[in-house]
Amino acid sequence: MEIKYFDNAATTRIKEEVFREMVPYLTNQYGNASSIYKIGRDSRRAIEQARGRVASLFNSDPSEIYFTSCGSESDNMALKGMAYLQKEKGTGKDHIITSKIEHPAILESCKTLEKQGFRVTYLDVDKEGVVDLNSLENAIDEKTFLISIMYANNEIGTIEPIEQISKIAHNHNIIFHTDAVQATGNVDIDVKKLNIDILSMSGHKIYAPKGIGAIYIRKGIEINRFMDGGHQEKNKRAGTENVAEIVGLGKACELAEKNLESYQKKLLFLKGYFIKKLTENFQDFIINGSLENRLPGNCNICFKNIDSNELLFKLDAVRNMCIWRFCLFFWR
Amino acid sequence: MEIKYFDNAATTRIKEEVFREMVPYLTNQYGNASSIYKIGRDSRRAIEQARGRVASLFNSDPSEIYFTSCGSESDNMALKGMAYLQKEKGTGKDHIITSKIEHPAILESCKTLEKQGFRVTYLDVDKEGVVDLNSLENAIDEKTFLISIMYANNEIGTIEPIEQISKIAHNHNIIFHTDAVQATGNVDIDVKKLNIDILSMSGHKIYAPKGIGAIYIRKGIEINRFMDGGHQEKNKRAGTENVAEIVGLGKACELAEKNLESYQKKLLFLKGYFIKKLTENFQDFIINGSLENRLPGNCNICFKNIDSNELLFKLDAVRNMCIWRFCLFFWR
Repeated sequence: MEIKYFDNAATTRIKEEVFREMVPYLTNQYGNASSIYKIGRDSRRAIEQARGRVASLFNSDPSEIYFTSCGSESDNMALKGMAYLQKEKGTGKDHIITSKIEHPAILESCKTLEKQGFRVTYLDVDKEGVVDLNSLENAIDEKTFLISIMYANNEIGTIEPIEQISKIAHNHNIIFHTDAVQATGNVDIDVKKLNIDILSMSGHKIYAPKGIGAIYIRKGIEINRFMDGGHQEKNKRAGTENVAEIVGLGKACELAEKNLESYQKKLLFLKGYFIKKLTENFQDFIINGSLENRLPGNCNICFKNIDSNELLFKLDAVRNMCIWRFCLFFWR
Repeated sequence: MEIKYFDNAATTRIKEEVFREMVPYLTNQYGNASSIYKIGRDSRRAIEQARGRVASLFNSDPSEIYFTSCGSESDNMALKGMAYLQKEKGTGKDHIITSKIEHPAILESCKTLEKQGFRVTYLDVDKEGVVDLNSLENAIDEKTFLISIMYANNEIGTIEPIEQISKIAHNHNIIFHTDAVQATGNVDIDVKKLNIDILSMSGHKIYAPKGIGAIYIRKGIEINRFMDGGHQEKNKRAGTENVAEIVGLGKACELAEKNLESYQKKLLFLKGYFIKKLTENFQDFIINGSLENRLPGNCNICFKNIDSNELLFKLDAVRNMCIWRFCLFFWR
């Protein structure tokens, strides 16, 4: 029985090249990157090489990349780090704008901040999942310090109008953060061109291991630390560096950058084939979201009168099957 | 040239058995533990097995163990999670007691909380690094909600009087947290016997990988989440589970529990040999801290008129050498 894994929006399999580069740092190269003797310096060098690779994927500078333990941590840091800075500096600013379809790492961080006295506006989206720019403009007030809108949605794959959102933010001197966990490696993200201030990304969505992420913070942007402790990551994120997984993330970013075009083509071909087969075999389904303005690998489908989890479970239990995020389809 | 690594207080080399158990989860077993199909359920099962192993090391229940990305995160969660809970519940309590020799993850979290209106008492320690119990009693006021004292110090290895501190805390209905990052795997820690409410631990100090930690939270203790987002770890820690490293941590804990006695004996023998050789070859040095009341593997030494970092760097660069934490010694 051959299993086809279609749930790469949930997590991906580590690439062989990525695993191979990690192995030394899980075996012989065990130095703590903060140690000044050779084995420590070797770890430090590996981390800095990885930082360069991550930076390159986003057309940023290595000094603007900080490693975290996951996309959720990057999101927590972006929101709470900016929020607590306002309090500490006494800026009097207390307002964040985000959307209703953000990842829970954003939405739950916002809820926590609301409990601590911050105000949050959750923007509606249209039926294709796109944030309305007029609503965004209208939501801004003189106390808004942060706009956080995801690059692409994690369920329906809609790509948000990042460049315009960033423009609106900067017209009002507001910091712009984007959760690019789902978009990274699937579309070309140029933080300079798009004028992004802070960006979250995660390893395990791009064929790197689970348990590693990064945050891009544009040079000159001040932000509080989320993880307090030692001086790692230029004092921006405490905790002994996860050298092996940082190395893995670096390699995955290098591969993502190198292969982006061919990867997109492959995904678009597979998606087209999938939808064709679906159309031939089923009538009662609709594709959610826009067909054009979405991640190449994303397909999100409603089947009428079928509970998705139940179907997914049954197909998995009994036969050769294909899983796509929240959508199921049996072929032979 | 043979290098002898003596800096296991900074980080340890992953054990072969640990690495071997991790490999499947870095290759074929890549399921997201939140996915309900088979490959996801396999990851879930591996995580729960690891949780049982970690729990067993501390004589706790698996339901009381939550995985984090490192010891620093566990410390951040213990302090901030308890502090923000007070605010949210409106308990009126705002006071934490800790010591001056805690790890930066504790001290810096305290500083952050002080900026946010909490009060922190930093207890002095005696010349051997032991917290004075009378000072602790005297520091308690009716608004104290947390006492956080490390199990054993990360520099001089002093073991604190945890059982008595825990008693004092509970006599005043105060939650007791201990940072056991440095002690775990080196001494027997029984959270039931010692009546510990919350405990932090880290993987890379006990031959598991960097980038994984855990927090023990006694059943019934309420605490706020530090990492907001999805419902992972029974809603206590968001972020896709780092399955491979969780599995590694579980294996390392199993080995630590099984080998504790022989490991302690080996460390004590090596330390004795080291001090003997040191005494034979040097005059101008002192051993810092207590010789009895300390971690078996810890040795902390002052050499007169030598800068430790400079010496460490030089020895590392030029010849076969032994490194101990902040202490150096050349033998053949």
